[in-house]
Amino acid sequence: MKVGVVGLGRVGKIHLSNLIYHFPEIDVVIVSDPAVETHDFARRLGVQNIVQNAEEVLTHPDVDAVLICSPTPYHVPNLILAARHGKHIFCEKPVDVTLSSIKEACKVVEEFGVKLMVGFNRRFDDNFSRVRELVASGKIGEPHILRITSRDPAPPSLDYLRTSGGIFLDMTIHDFDMARFIVGSEVVEVFVKGAALINPEIERINDIDTAVIVLTFENGAIGVIDNSRKAVYGYDQRLEIFGSEGMARAENRKENDVEFAGKEGITGALPLYFFLERYEKAFRECLRNFLSCVANDEASPVNVYDGLMATAIGKAALKSLMEKRPVKMSEVLNEVDREIIISGSN
Amino acid sequence: MKVGVVGLGRVGKIHLSNLIYHFPEIDVVIVSDPAVETHDFARRLGVQNIVQNAEEVLTHPDVDAVLICSPTPYHVPNLILAARHGKHIFCEKPVDVTLSSIKEACKVVEEFGVKLMVGFNRRFDDNFSRVRELVASGKIGEPHILRITSRDPAPPSLDYLRTSGGIFLDMTIHDFDMARFIVGSEVVEVFVKGAALINPEIERINDIDTAVIVLTFENGAIGVIDNSRKAVYGYDQRLEIFGSEGMARAENRKENDVEFAGKEGITGALPLYFFLERYEKAFRECLRNFLSCVANDEASPVNVYDGLMATAIGKAALKSLMEKRPVKMSEVLNEVDREIIISGSN
Amino acid sequence: MKVGVVGLGRVGKIHLSNLIYHFPEIDVVIVSDPAVETHDFARRLGVQNIVQNAEEVLTHPDVDAVLICSPTPYHVPNLILAARHGKHIFCEKPVDVTLSSIKEACKVVEEFGVKLMVGFNRRFDDNFSRVRELVASGKIGEPHILRITSRDPAPPSLDYLRTSGGIFLDMTIHDFDMARFIVGSEVVEVFVKGAALINPEIERINDIDTAVIVLTFENGAIGVIDNSRKAVYGYDQRLEIFGSEGMARAENRKENDVEFAGKEGITGALPLYFFLERYEKAFRECLRNFLSCVANDEASPVNVYDGLMATAIGKAALKSLMEKRPVKMSEVLNEVDREIIISGSN
Amino acid sequence: MKVGVVGLGRVGKIHLSNLIYHFPEIDVVIVSDPAVETHDFARRLGVQNIVQNAEEVLTHPDVDAVLICSPTPYHVPNLILAARHGKHIFCEKPVDVTLSSIKEACKVVEEFGVKLMVGFNRRFDDNFSRVRELVASGKIGEPHILRITSRDPAPPSLDYLRTSGGIFLDMTIHDFDMARFIVGSEVVEVFVKGAALINPEIERINDIDTAVIVLTFENGAIGVIDNSRKAVYGYDQRLEIFGSEGMARAENRKENDVEFAGKEGITGALPLYFFLERYEKAFRECLRNFLSCVANDEASPVNVYDGLMATAIGKAALKSLMEKRPVKMSEVLNEVDREIIISGSN
Repeated sequence: MKVGVVGLGRVGKIHLSNLIYHFPEIDVVIVSDPAVETHDFARRLGVQNIVQNAEEVLTHPDVDAVLICSPTPYHVPNLILAARHGKHIFCEKPVDVTLSSIKEACKVVEEFGVKLMVGFNRRFDDNFSRVRELVASGKIGEPHILRITSRDPAPPSLDYLRTSGGIFLDMTIHDFDMARFIVGSEVVEVFVKGAALINPEIERINDIDTAVIVLTFENGAIGVIDNSRKAVYGYDQRLEIFGSEGMARAENRKENDVEFAGKEGITGALPLYFFLERYEKAFRECLRNFLSCVANDEASPVNVYDGLMATAIGKAALKSLMEKRPVKMSEVLNEVDREIIISGSN
Repeated sequence: MKVGVVGLGRVGKIHLSNLIYHFPEIDVVIVSDPAVETHDFARRLGVQNIVQNAEEVLTHPDVDAVLICSPTPYHVPNLILAARHGKHIFCEKPVDVTLSSIKEACKVVEEFGVKLMVGFNRRFDDNFSRVRELVASGKIGEPHILRITSRDPAPPSLDYLRTSGGIFLDMTIHDFDMARFIVGSEVVEVFVKGAALINPEIERINDIDTAVIVLTFENGAIGVIDNSRKAVYGYDQRLEIFGSEGMARAENRKENDVEFAGKEGITGALPLYFFLERYEKAFRECLRNFLSCVANDEASPVNVYDGLMATAIGKAALKSLMEKRPVKMSEVLNEVDREIIISGSN
Repeated sequence: MKVGVVGLGRVGKIHLSNLIYHFPEIDVVIVSDPAVETHDFARRLGVQNIVQNAEEVLTHPDVDAVLICSPTPYHVPNLILAARHGKHIFCEKPVDVTLSSIKEACKVVEEFGVKLMVGFNRRFDDNFSRVRELVASGKIGEPHILRITSRDPAPPSLDYLRTSGGIFLDMTIHDFDMARFIVGSEVVEVFVKGAALINPEIERINDIDTAVIVLTFENGAIGVIDNSRKAVYGYDQRLEIFGSEGMARAENRKENDVEFAGKEGITGALPLYFFLERYEKAFRECLRNFLSCVANDEASPVNVYDGLMATAIGKAALKSLMEKRPVKMSEVLNEVDREIIISGSN
Repeated sequence: MKVGVVGLGRVGKIHLSNLIYHFPEIDVVIVSDPAVETHDFARRLGVQNIVQNAEEVLTHPDVDAVLICSPTPYHVPNLILAARHGKHIFCEKPVDVTLSSIKEACKVVEEFGVKLMVGFNRRFDDNFSRVRELVASGKIGEPHILRITSRDPAPPSLDYLRTSGGIFLDMTIHDFDMARFIVGSEVVEVFVKGAALINPEIERINDIDTAVIVLTFENGAIGVIDNSRKAVYGYDQRLEIFGSEGMARAENRKENDVEFAGKEGITGALPLYFFLERYEKAFRECLRNFLSCVANDEASPVNVYDGLMATAIGKAALKSLMEKRPVKMSEVLNEVDREIIISGSN
């Protein structure tokens, strides 16, 4: 298989390294990034053809599949161009911040019959995939309560936050996808309580840094996500699903499994520092799944409908925060939309 | 100190046993219960004076302090009679299900200058009191997010539920008190999402068995309680408080600390089965605190205002469930109330 | 049942309190201790007949069973006198420090047909009894390796140590009994490596404070005990049994189940401080078993042969330490002894 | 740096993959293995020059450093040839099974002034290196007791075992090195208790499958290693070091951090299956340390003296097993040897 990569930002670099080191059977024929200072990274990995223009990658005649790791506003245009040229697509999340745009992408993907996988890498984490397995196999019975804790070690810069689309589309979007993945049912209502408790500057740019989000699912389960932009003890990524027959929970992966017992107590290691460390393997497994679905002509394990829903829940969350009330998903996404999307998902 | 006990139901028996076995310096002079079949229990513990009528206990000239363990509707009448006769009072929770009634109790307690402690025994649990210590000492910094998980091993009978006052006043009321205790700030808003997921019969009697409750605190912290009437793995009583400087969490106490590693995995013990086992020591410590505040003429560690607030949050929760929206505490409890109560708290 | 107690030292007080508070159906008719200053304790618990002379207890006509909690050198004489007067006997460990003396006790107990239970309370600890259950039920298969960690929070005074009989008879004796109990097979060889690493004064009184003991069992299993007189983090009482089908291990019981996650790590509570806290319930359950075996005329769950074997292993350990070589149990205890004892055990 | 690799067995493949994927700045110029069917592996990784004869690698004019991953009997001859040609050497463990042979290697390495690192990869495991850090920094005070548990998931074939050199040189050798590494002091005495409890066939080939080994260290600390060839729950690699100021212990790394709470108990994941999974990162870090000590002309972190000592402890262990007594290290290794070796270590 011949692959092209668009974008050499933080995530683009992760995917490119994984392709080179862990999938030596894959041929990376072309890579693009407008910033020439990023090209060295690709060059050191042995990539020969490195360009500034994404179009060259997306339309390259030898390329079978593309990884779109450009900034979010370029995702949909890149994706449409790639689909039109018959390339299978791996697209970073969020697909887009506007629902209409994602719907347009859906149509094109459907029209040209290419695979599209959205990069919700956390689904492939050893912990979360194990919990999903326990739910899917019926071990926990009917799901009743979902709890997701997702806290970052430190907030990004205000500059970053200003253009991030807000906490729900930038950070919680992963948790929205995780919620749907774990419960295996659609979200029908969202209620948010949030505030800027860490840094009042964040409030001034109309964002929040601490949030509790209540999700109601079609199957009756109730979910709670809690987010913070700053956990002094590191990256906190836990979840728990409680059902009629039992409960499964995923604790943090830690730097090591050593404990020290001294006069003051028994002290253990902190969680792996941040997403690069924690999801190192998940990024790889996510990519493996994309490559495998293309190679074996199987359905994409995370399709464009998943991408749409995560963004749609984010929209509902924002609406709930603004209007201080529970918001039905149907207020942001009607049944007609849903049908279109389902038919468009591959 | 000479003590009388009103009521020999489940909790009355716990308190009486603790008095006899663990506080031998206390003289239990009289005990009452209308049901004569309960009297044997007291007799075997060596209590000499066992009567059917609560009044005899509440007005007994030798009695310094009374434990009111009668059914909830009798709490306030019992409490008023005891106060008028100058007895110090330990009253089981909830003080009452109507706020006006509790306010009346407040006034009488204030008027006659007796101590009143409400039996929120969980505050004296080794785990939860340790978490509170960490919060109070500033170790976690400013509290941002509180999470309480409180799940029972099995639902009570429908007969019991019919007269229980609903999940919020029967079960969650402990969690409401715990939330105020741990965060150390008042609740200002309540939002509830709940359903009868375990047993549809429960819905038919206008109650729920599964709930997620979002609390907003005066200090900006956001809390989440999740409740279930049936956790197949036993009594699940955990909490976590996350703040600007760290996070403290209390896990379940287990039947033992043994793990078995076999081919299928590594298996550990279940949590202590139910509240009698889990809170055995907390009941004792709670009683110790009451006896000590009376003996040393100190302020009650859990006063009638605490009792009022737990019930008031329960009222707000019910309103939120019914009206499907966040409810301000001021909708159920106005500032004037609060002042009256504060002045009446001892 | 009517019970008498001999000795009001630390352990005598524990047993007496347990009798009074937890077994109200038992009648404590007489208690003795030569030191009159200890009598107040018994008086406050409501014991009427408190004497200085043990004989009065051991021969009291109303007494059915006695608890012998006198200093070790008095155990056997007390025990023989009690047996001759037909009293059932609960005797604190070690029964004696000389094997011949214990054998004499065996004979008398057999002759007069009374029950004798040795106070190895740890067998009744929730953790260790659970591990034994897993072994006895075959869950771990054939036992191969046993590991016991037994460390005290602080060494006793040199004065105490001088007359303690040495670490093996004073401290490790509990672990020797535990080893036999968990594995369910007899020890056939002992090898010791020990030193005074905590306090060189301990070496000067011909004792050690740190030891590793290797036990070989009749069934082929190999055991290791490690002891220290001083673990700065508290009382460390863990064990692990590894077999052909799995492994069971008991971790420490802790003061609470709270963890604090801060910048420096995640810190949990220390183990329960010392044996009074850790084995509080085990002392009670041990006593319950004695009372029940007498009441129901059942075999003693920990008989005098168990007492003999624990002391005998201690003797072999001392010999190994002195002679720096593995010592066969047959060097301290021959087959003839064993037969006598077995027939004498009840 | 230009590197050559000798041997494409299981471990040779690990090192080669790591070189290619994780150290792209290193140039692998030549690889050898007599078995041509292994060459494909190297070819797929892009190695151009693949030969059958080790000499071509060890004497290749462009090569700066060699990785010796040939079968044990070839280690020393390979190592001497490489040293004579001025190559820096990474040598798999054990360096050799005879002490005289290792001493010869020491002399040659010294004479030609090349670096030699022995592949005790476990020192670079995140858990064990963290424990060593705690010991080295003085956090645990003076070391008193060391415990190592090292159990394999399943025994190798009898064919393998027949030529393995016995459990001590094949399996425990890693634990012997770990013991010296963690305690930071030399072993002075060894006592072994062992048996073939898993498979009696193993006894017939004069080997054992279950062992408990007591080590005495120069600094007075006492260590215990327990080994089993078959833990049904997987690869069990834990250790604990107890000292005057505290205790540090390393638990197993598990497949995931998920627990399932059901009616029967709370079940967690098994340890990572075997050494390939558990020490994946440790192999890489070990290699990184070798490459870095060569590149920066620093001392080898695991030198030939370490290799010698691990083998020597193995010899003493075997002697102890045979002679059923504690064996002094001076019986297998005299002071003169030690001086020679120290001067020869680099």
